[in-house]
Amino acid sequence: MVGLVRLSIDPSANPDDYDFVHRIRVRFVETDAMGIVHHSNYLAYFEESRVAYLRHVGHPFTAWRDEGLESPVLESYMRFRAPLRFDDLVDVRLRLGAVTRTTFQMAYLVTVDDAAGEPTACATGVTVHGCTTTAGRPMRLPSWLVELGDRADR
Amino acid sequence: MVGLVRLSIDPSANPDDYDFVHRIRVRFVETDAMGIVHHSNYLAYFEESRVAYLRHVGHPFTAWRDEGLESPVLESYMRFRAPLRFDDLVDVRLRLGAVTRTTFQMAYLVTVDDAAGEPTACATGVTVHGCTTTAGRPMRLPSWLVELGDRADR
Amino acid sequence: MVGLVRLSIDPSANPDDYDFVHRIRVRFVETDAMGIVHHSNYLAYFEESRVAYLRHVGHPFTAWRDEGLESPVLESYMRFRAPLRFDDLVDVRLRLGAVTRTTFQMAYLVTVDDAAGEPTACATGVTVHGCTTTAGRPMRLPSWLVELGDRADR
Amino acid sequence: MVGLVRLSIDPSANPDDYDFVHRIRVRFVETDAMGIVHHSNYLAYFEESRVAYLRHVGHPFTAWRDEGLESPVLESYMRFRAPLRFDDLVDVRLRLGAVTRTTFQMAYLVTVDDAAGEPTACATGVTVHGCTTTAGRPMRLPSWLVELGDRADR
Repeated sequence: MVGLVRLSIDPSANPDDYDFVHRIRVRFVETDAMGIVHHSNYLAYFEESRVAYLRHVGHPFTAWRDEGLESPVLESYMRFRAPLRFDDLVDVRLRLGAVTRTTFQMAYLVTVDDAAGEPTACATGVTVHGCTTTAGRPMRLPSWLVELGDRADR
Repeated sequence: MVGLVRLSIDPSANPDDYDFVHRIRVRFVETDAMGIVHHSNYLAYFEESRVAYLRHVGHPFTAWRDEGLESPVLESYMRFRAPLRFDDLVDVRLRLGAVTRTTFQMAYLVTVDDAAGEPTACATGVTVHGCTTTAGRPMRLPSWLVELGDRADR
Repeated sequence: MVGLVRLSIDPSANPDDYDFVHRIRVRFVETDAMGIVHHSNYLAYFEESRVAYLRHVGHPFTAWRDEGLESPVLESYMRFRAPLRFDDLVDVRLRLGAVTRTTFQMAYLVTVDDAAGEPTACATGVTVHGCTTTAGRPMRLPSWLVELGDRADR
Repeated sequence: MVGLVRLSIDPSANPDDYDFVHRIRVRFVETDAMGIVHHSNYLAYFEESRVAYLRHVGHPFTAWRDEGLESPVLESYMRFRAPLRFDDLVDVRLRLGAVTRTTFQMAYLVTVDDAAGEPTACATGVTVHGCTTTAGRPMRLPSWLVELGDRADR
């Protein structure tokens, strides 16, 4: 597809393909008149999970921002497989990949446990990120992130 | 890319490739602590523009819903080229494409006029939609939409 | 009521009590699983209308921000009388009042026209605002706003 | 104040005046270009906490909805004392009060712990709720809620 210049990692529907999981409970405000979670909220779920992941690996996004860095989203992709509903306990799995000197990607799998406790794939997605100063000037990624990407790609 | 099963139309950065334009002014609530519009809001801009387009072609989405039909988003793609800021006057251009019996796609171009009045591409995107009953049962698309797609693809 | 230290102006349900009107069309994303507009969105409607009013009186909020000033919300009150629904054309009327050297208040009336074209009161509200520097230091209000308040209170 | 017909309970700034506490971490999407949490999001925080409280007392809001009941917000009041920022750990305390046969109220206190671990009051608020069928017909409150209110008011 023309225009998809960076987005390249596979948002697998298999939970085993992911390194990290973050649980979110669906808020009522996130539902819409179809009775399901509005699709725009998945980007907020991805973001909350990304922030939890960065904290988990010892590089909280607040520290990143304290150093004057931002991590703007350059591209996003989502596929909606089954709806989420109010009060659902949602697991967002994520995986780092395709780390270059200036960009990184995250793949996401959104699941809800079925009656038997097995995760059901509800959505998958990818976000592509750059790194800039607060003023918007493009920067190289922090070295720890490049190294984390090297390990993830092995 | 694995998983990109449906998303196929090109979200061109050329305004001439689009059929319809809808203007939106950025709300303060849509900005984030980076001082720019949070990326999740573009999906709301696309949706508002899609609704305006359907009204324009004589098939308002309210009529669709009155007939017991929904049009869930199956996939979305966005590429962010330049940030949007509070109070920006944003033009969302859109184009219908890749209409099948059960799905349709919309390509979007988001522009802001520069000082010379020329549209600057800020973002592009694609959404893929299905058609279901209110209860979620998949339906064929309304025939007017298939015909509109046939004309658009010519 | 204890704690209601500043909020003092009356958000009348009579359209004639207001100076300015701004029209907004309800977005689908603003609805919730009750099929109506989620109550939190009214604050975004008030804000969009406030920004339109400041532009109307020749002091756009962007100019305010360019001068390094912010106008934080100190208090808010809302009363929900009748629900708003997807695609409704909503008129937000507002009125400036109770302007002091450091705070001002806005009263709001939200209406939708009935079948006969008469505005039906759907919600009323009040917001109380201060004035600070970008760094959060309290400031006196701009003199034009104090003068505007003096005229409004006459 | 005219129009404040129902809102009557005191949203105290003293944590000891509350029965229940629910912790929320601020999302980046909830911030705005002032670098703080946009005021409209506090209503989502109140709602999430209210839902957690109803689960805690054994009457989850999902059960309420399964019985065909809704609990629309009739009025809301908020006072913003100190800003919330990205990634803050926010404690929302709440208290049920002023329960009648057809309405109930919730008072809220929003705190963030200071460096010494002491809760700092950032906001207070009140919401007033009714009870309706899904179709919007007003209903009496469930008896368990009236009894809960009786105990709370003692």
